[in-house]
This record gives sequence, C-alpha cells and structure tokens, in this order.
Amino acid sequence: MEKRFEISLLLDFYGELLTQKQRDIMDLYFNNDLSLSEIAEINNTSRQAIHDAIKRSDNLLLVYEEKLKLLNKDHKLKENLKSVILKLDNLQTNIKDKEMNQLIYDIKTQLIENI
Amino acid sequence: MEKRFEISLLLDFYGELLTQKQRDIMDLYFNNDLSLSEIAEINNTSRQAIHDAIKRSDNLLLVYEEKLKLLNKDHKLKENLKSVILKLDNLQTNIKDKEMNQLIYDIKTQLIENI
Repeated sequence: MEKRFEISLLLDFYGELLTQKQRDIMDLYFNNDLSLSEIAEINNTSRQAIHDAIKRSDNLLLVYEEKLKLLNKDHKLKENLKSVILKLDNLQTNIKDKEMNQLIYDIKTQLIENI
Repeated sequence: MEKRFEISLLLDFYGELLTQKQRDIMDLYFNNDLSLSEIAEINNTSRQAIHDAIKRSDNLLLVYEEKLKLLNKDHKLKENLKSVILKLDNLQTNIKDKEMNQLIYDIKTQLIENI
C-alpha cells in the first residue's frame, strides 16, 4: 500500500488516540496536502518541529496498528463481504421470482453498509 | 451489559494497549476469577495495590472505548450480519433448487465467520 495512503487510513482508525494538536498536523499534511512549511506557519513554529511531530505521530499510528491490527481486520472483513456480494449477484441472476429477487437486493444493500 | 462481562469484552479489544503486567492482572481477575488477595499473593504485593491496578486498567479500557468505540461498532456489525443471515434463512426455505440452496448455505457459512 502506498505509504501516504496507509497513514491516511491509519489516521481514520487511530486518530482519536493522538492529541488534538497531533491530529490537526497529521490531517493538514496527509489529508489536506499542505507542505511542512505551510503547517509550520499555521502553528507558528519551525518546519523541523512539524517534521518531528509528524514522524512521532506516524510511529504512534504504526504501533497502534501493530497492537490492534484494525486496518488489517477491516480489510479482511471487507474482502469477505465483497465476495459474499458477488455470490449474491450470481444467485440473483439465476432467480426469476420478483419477490425473492427483491430480498436478495435488500440483503446486498444491507451488506454494502459495512463496506 | 453486566460490568464484569463488559470489561472482559473490552480486554479482548484493547488488552494489547495495556502493559503485560496490567493485562496479566486483568486476565486473572476478569477471565480466571481469582480474588484480589490471590492475585496479590502471585504478584508479591498488597491486595490494595492490585485493587488500584485493576481500577486504573479499567479506566484505561473505558477511555479507549470512548475514543475508538470498537465494542460498539463490533456489536452493530454483528447485529447487521445476524439479520442478513435470518433473511438468507428465509430465502433458503423458499428456494427448492439444490445448487442455489447450497450457494445460500455457503454464503451463510462465510458470513458466520465474522460473527
């Protein structure tokens, strides 16, 4: 997975475990694409200080993932549900009954909520 | 939810975020049902020290749940999947075709893995 994208995902999962300040800096850098200098200016500090703060938060997020593996578990769950939806598609094409077809459609919709 | 049971579930989700020592004490108390005095003896410390350690870990687990809500999310996911499985049961009773019936059975089995 591309590093930048991975950090952005980890932020979704573990962002709440960072401090508000750490979260804000990570959000500006990874989600809003601001440069280190721009973030430094907003925070009235040096580019180096922001660089270090990002590095620290980055490491924290990786430690949380190493311990809880939420990203990994979420990925497996979604792959599992996607494969179930494909099987339901297959079933749907083979069932002509309108009512049952609607039921399969509803089940798929309900599963997609989790993806 | 019964407090003791809730803590035991929270331990499953966030136990890795505690130290090894905290985790061991919580495990002895909540999963193995040892008394404070028994755990104190094992750890060569006082009953009061174990009481305080459990209280601290207990609070930590609740803070993690407050921030990440994994228990809550997991509960919602499982309820959603259980309701999907009920709908698949309903579908299965209405489909006589053996092959399609087998497919629905496979889908259910695959969903149950996540519950």
